[in-house]
Amino acid sequence: MGSSIGRLLRLSTFGESHGAGLGAILEGCPPRIPLDIEAIQADLDRRKPGNSSLTSARAEADTIEILSGVFDGKTLGTAIGFLFRNRDANPSAYRPFKDKYRPSHADYTYDARYGIRDWRGGGRASARETVCRVAAGGIARQILAHQCNAEIIAWVDQVGHIESDCNTDRVTRAQVDATEVRCPDPDAAARMAAEIKDARSNKDTIGGVLRCVVRNVPAGLGDPVFDKLEADLAHACMSIPAAKGFSIGSGFAGSRMRGSEHNDAFAAVNGQVATTTNHSGGIQGGISNGMNILLSVAFKPVATIFTTQDTVTTTGKSTTIAPRGRHDPCVLPRAVPIVEAMVALVLCDHLLRWRAIQPLPATSNVIKTEK
Amino acid sequence: MGSSIGRLLRLSTFGESHGAGLGAILEGCPPRIPLDIEAIQADLDRRKPGNSSLTSARAEADTIEILSGVFDGKTLGTAIGFLFRNRDANPSAYRPFKDKYRPSHADYTYDARYGIRDWRGGGRASARETVCRVAAGGIARQILAHQCNAEIIAWVDQVGHIESDCNTDRVTRAQVDATEVRCPDPDAAARMAAEIKDARSNKDTIGGVLRCVVRNVPAGLGDPVFDKLEADLAHACMSIPAAKGFSIGSGFAGSRMRGSEHNDAFAAVNGQVATTTNHSGGIQGGISNGMNILLSVAFKPVATIFTTQDTVTTTGKSTTIAPRGRHDPCVLPRAVPIVEAMVALVLCDHLLRWRAIQPLPATSNVIKTEK
Amino acid sequence: MGSSIGRLLRLSTFGESHGAGLGAILEGCPPRIPLDIEAIQADLDRRKPGNSSLTSARAEADTIEILSGVFDGKTLGTAIGFLFRNRDANPSAYRPFKDKYRPSHADYTYDARYGIRDWRGGGRASARETVCRVAAGGIARQILAHQCNAEIIAWVDQVGHIESDCNTDRVTRAQVDATEVRCPDPDAAARMAAEIKDARSNKDTIGGVLRCVVRNVPAGLGDPVFDKLEADLAHACMSIPAAKGFSIGSGFAGSRMRGSEHNDAFAAVNGQVATTTNHSGGIQGGISNGMNILLSVAFKPVATIFTTQDTVTTTGKSTTIAPRGRHDPCVLPRAVPIVEAMVALVLCDHLLRWRAIQPLPATSNVIKTEK
Amino acid sequence: MGSSIGRLLRLSTFGESHGAGLGAILEGCPPRIPLDIEAIQADLDRRKPGNSSLTSARAEADTIEILSGVFDGKTLGTAIGFLFRNRDANPSAYRPFKDKYRPSHADYTYDARYGIRDWRGGGRASARETVCRVAAGGIARQILAHQCNAEIIAWVDQVGHIESDCNTDRVTRAQVDATEVRCPDPDAAARMAAEIKDARSNKDTIGGVLRCVVRNVPAGLGDPVFDKLEADLAHACMSIPAAKGFSIGSGFAGSRMRGSEHNDAFAAVNGQVATTTNHSGGIQGGISNGMNILLSVAFKPVATIFTTQDTVTTTGKSTTIAPRGRHDPCVLPRAVPIVEAMVALVLCDHLLRWRAIQPLPATSNVIKTEK
Repeated sequence: MGSSIGRLLRLSTFGESHGAGLGAILEGCPPRIPLDIEAIQADLDRRKPGNSSLTSARAEADTIEILSGVFDGKTLGTAIGFLFRNRDANPSAYRPFKDKYRPSHADYTYDARYGIRDWRGGGRASARETVCRVAAGGIARQILAHQCNAEIIAWVDQVGHIESDCNTDRVTRAQVDATEVRCPDPDAAARMAAEIKDARSNKDTIGGVLRCVVRNVPAGLGDPVFDKLEADLAHACMSIPAAKGFSIGSGFAGSRMRGSEHNDAFAAVNGQVATTTNHSGGIQGGISNGMNILLSVAFKPVATIFTTQDTVTTTGKSTTIAPRGRHDPCVLPRAVPIVEAMVALVLCDHLLRWRAIQPLPATSNVIKTEK
Repeated sequence: MGSSIGRLLRLSTFGESHGAGLGAILEGCPPRIPLDIEAIQADLDRRKPGNSSLTSARAEADTIEILSGVFDGKTLGTAIGFLFRNRDANPSAYRPFKDKYRPSHADYTYDARYGIRDWRGGGRASARETVCRVAAGGIARQILAHQCNAEIIAWVDQVGHIESDCNTDRVTRAQVDATEVRCPDPDAAARMAAEIKDARSNKDTIGGVLRCVVRNVPAGLGDPVFDKLEADLAHACMSIPAAKGFSIGSGFAGSRMRGSEHNDAFAAVNGQVATTTNHSGGIQGGISNGMNILLSVAFKPVATIFTTQDTVTTTGKSTTIAPRGRHDPCVLPRAVPIVEAMVALVLCDHLLRWRAIQPLPATSNVIKTEK
Repeated sequence: MGSSIGRLLRLSTFGESHGAGLGAILEGCPPRIPLDIEAIQADLDRRKPGNSSLTSARAEADTIEILSGVFDGKTLGTAIGFLFRNRDANPSAYRPFKDKYRPSHADYTYDARYGIRDWRGGGRASARETVCRVAAGGIARQILAHQCNAEIIAWVDQVGHIESDCNTDRVTRAQVDATEVRCPDPDAAARMAAEIKDARSNKDTIGGVLRCVVRNVPAGLGDPVFDKLEADLAHACMSIPAAKGFSIGSGFAGSRMRGSEHNDAFAAVNGQVATTTNHSGGIQGGISNGMNILLSVAFKPVATIFTTQDTVTTTGKSTTIAPRGRHDPCVLPRAVPIVEAMVALVLCDHLLRWRAIQPLPATSNVIKTEK
Repeated sequence: MGSSIGRLLRLSTFGESHGAGLGAILEGCPPRIPLDIEAIQADLDRRKPGNSSLTSARAEADTIEILSGVFDGKTLGTAIGFLFRNRDANPSAYRPFKDKYRPSHADYTYDARYGIRDWRGGGRASARETVCRVAAGGIARQILAHQCNAEIIAWVDQVGHIESDCNTDRVTRAQVDATEVRCPDPDAAARMAAEIKDARSNKDTIGGVLRCVVRNVPAGLGDPVFDKLEADLAHACMSIPAAKGFSIGSGFAGSRMRGSEHNDAFAAVNGQVATTTNHSGGIQGGISNGMNILLSVAFKPVATIFTTQDTVTTTGKSTTIAPRGRHDPCVLPRAVPIVEAMVALVLCDHLLRWRAIQPLPATSNVIKTEK
């Protein structure tokens, strides 16, 4: 349980950090969508470790192998299976910690739940599982681009106490990728990079906040009551390892406002309904209103720090631990494509849900597939 | 779609604000749980309008009628159906706005999605639907209390700029209910009440933040990857009308910390594994660790304000609107039992999911129902 | 669990036979479908007891009360809630059997599963729950008629050893309803009615087989592998109380054929692909091929017979039982609208699933709801 | 959609017949179950082609590679991923038929649904996908054996007009596997083998019926209304390629009986409730009663026959086709482990569902994982 997400576009994943590999099945993809595998790989490369001075040294090519569901470069409409072999797994590095619970990791809770634990680098709880999210999100992103030109851009908005100053309506992916830290505000980016390096040099780690904008989302996506678009986005983003908070539109700041300030007045713009402000973050009553969707995700600092900490053994004795391994001092830069992937999966799922309720022309007695 | 939540304990609801009534089906409830209907009604009474100077004047008794699934005071294990008739519906009050989109309401987005709209007071998008959440949450809460003594307490932590100062480990329900505003810090409560009244006297509304603690949650609840406990809690809480943000444990503040500060050291306490701090908020790797679960939900100010605003008609013409109706100047006090209900539903669902994977004793060839 | 069916068009039901009432939520219905409530009631009237000399004497008007999801005669796209109050419940008639397990009823198995049982007339296991199926199926049938003119006709094909001789391609609903037994072959119908009366006069009951044809089903409905159309139809039909067998197309008889006899040759008919025979029953590889769908459902004789039988008490002692109550000597005539309803629900669900994967026109950046 | 089955034990599969390979994710498996991989492989070997004079010559080792979810020989409780590489794929053999629809195959219906088709040997519609079912069913079978000693045995009961005569209560797997045709009645087995060879020598194929018994199923498995055990079994079995009919207990024969003959009297046997006959097939009201579960599945003759048949091209022109390829003259022998697998998956899913509703001891405030 728990390894699947989505209702019509449904992603199921498997794999442990230092096992044979990780893989997934993506079900419900519409047929005849041309897939650009290189673009998917480009997203994977943004996530993979070892490609920046700010990230873990684990060397994984993370080259996707698509096993089914794609034929002559197009989706078949059937389940897409894909696989990543683990190449640089090093389970023995974790043997010293196999009988100790690493603080703020999932070691203890997995034991409490299952009574058995793959102690090799976090097993199923490792953030390595996000490789499958990014691959599936890359497919979802192409469906969205194909169907409605939707564009999803995330960036590092805050690291520790350092905040950026960006125009959310204009941020481009090129700006995001221009710095290793993936912050489109160059000045803030430089200070964030210094902060991350300072944390690492102190054997420490640092948290931060990602921000994400989605443009060209048509009005009408989202379901009433429990599957509101913001609820599904919150679910998807809060399932990312280390996520501690989620907000949509005005978020926590909106809780300090009065209605007269917060309400988004409607206006007719080029024959379309628009709002003159966007505190709603593109969603009203759980359904997109056609304005940009704006959301934030807060991440805690990485739990693996290289100083000695108090903990207990698996038999409940007090002890200390000084973790080793290859870890990021800050997950934010690598989390950018992960958040984009989760947002893409949710929006694509809701695009299909929207399609499902569109009536056929009345009294048509022939359904023809629109080739 | 969208009117159901939960996997093993599954709530499905129906009903429009000014239609015949609202109701629900709660599936998956274990059998033979004694149900205290009065306690459920007490939760409903905390949510219902008209019982405080701070809330809407709509007069609804909101008396639950249970139609099935309970026999001789105990759950049967079969689907529990229940119903609330609308008594004080007043659809005609909304007729003047039927061809205009109220700003920051769901009027426009429902039209964009469905091409048809029940304009009577928000229809399905009205917060009136939360009456079914509270009833179902009341049942879930009794199951949790029966099975593991879990205790769920929410309170108003912030209204506008006014923050409370509470000891989350000690807050009691009696303290919460001691003030109309449902803030256990009496000094803050008084200032919050004044702030809400000030907003109302200015024909305005005000937002705020709820905080919730869950005690006595056993370690081991939650599923890996996509159904992490915090992800399901975020989904449930962000589906509440007007919710704009969610956080678990350290939340957004945690994003400013370093790992050495944020990590929760393990210690053996009375033969049990515990942590000496609780930045994790009771959940690690998506699974409960036995410490108190701590979460916050941010709410925007109510969209219905009684001043004239710019908007458009359903045919896209510019116009103005000055809403009327019976609305709360601040949803926070009434949202307390709603957040508690959503948290109860998620935890109870995960309690059943936890039960499902517990192996039977090996080589038992008789399953006996534990009466 | 178990009280819901369907993925996109999802029916959830509640209610016990002699409790307060029965009801349901139908989610996922497309918006703006005009609903003919009288036609739904007409289906309910075909199912209700007391309207023929061949059926139970229980007097239930079974008048549907729709509580939500319909506005100005059209579907809103939101959850449709509906309710049937029990009017002629008579729980005390079952008190004598409350400590005995009626043979071939669900008394023992509910006790084994739940450790508690609503002994009033079968409780949740009573065929009375099918009233909600017929109502929901009536809605699904109207959606199908509206979208693709699909027509679903079931009839009594066999009672005991008496078989009918009908042309499945030409049977009409008028022919079916022309006889109380609902067999369009008048000669067989007369003999079936005599057989049922003979069983009743012997305090006995009798089984039979229903046959169902669906016309105007577009090609392309059904999903690969596990959600094949015939698999979902089998699931839906085998969930009807007393169903013991299901077949599609050639069914069990097809198992005796050779491939050269069984294969359906393709031919081009009026510019459409058709088959010259229809052993496939309108489904190939789990997906409809545009030919008539043909299926059969076998029903066992009703378990309530009015002669003394051996059984055990709830504490495991040997005893005898001589059931009383108001029961049908043969379920087949009343099962006609139930099978039609289940078939309609499955087909409508798959129609929506088919819609979901139809791509939008490439590079459209505006989704417009087709009003 | 459609590539997943099960609610708590959930199998999702992918893969085309002549693509890179086939694989699956099995979610929800309880932790700490020792897995005998050799036993799983033994089931796979019973299904694989090329190991009998009665089956296809395609040479696939079908060796399972488990990629995750198993550690030190035991299940982790996390998702189990596994993979089968295609070794003997030969897509070019299908090129001549790429523009023609093979009669009674899924070629036309996949085109009607998706507007694109993997023409290489049936693609996703090929029975080759059942390799994943057998692997997952092997795991489910071990869970069932571990938890309740349940034993699942299927066999070939009928080939064409030849019927076997077996004592369902006593059939053993050794008897089933003693003949190539997998019929435990040696005399019937010999005649069936001759019938299959006769069909093949005439370039033809032949259908038949499988029968399956499940012993040691505890009473209490199954859910009311829509997820009745027989409904879920019907769904699972009717999703197997070429299945045309399903029956439980007395099945279609039961429809000819009177209630006085069909009812199963209860009796107390060794302190347990039992029935003196078993027309119910071990299930009453959708819930197992502890008696043997008995079911049958009818299969049509294989569609690939080697004689010339009428058909149409993908552009709707009349033509003829004379299929080639490597196919079975009769699927029945290889379908034995497939039916067993589907039955195992359904029963194991319901075992977990049963576990989920068992209450914890009242007022326990500590959940301890039972190691």
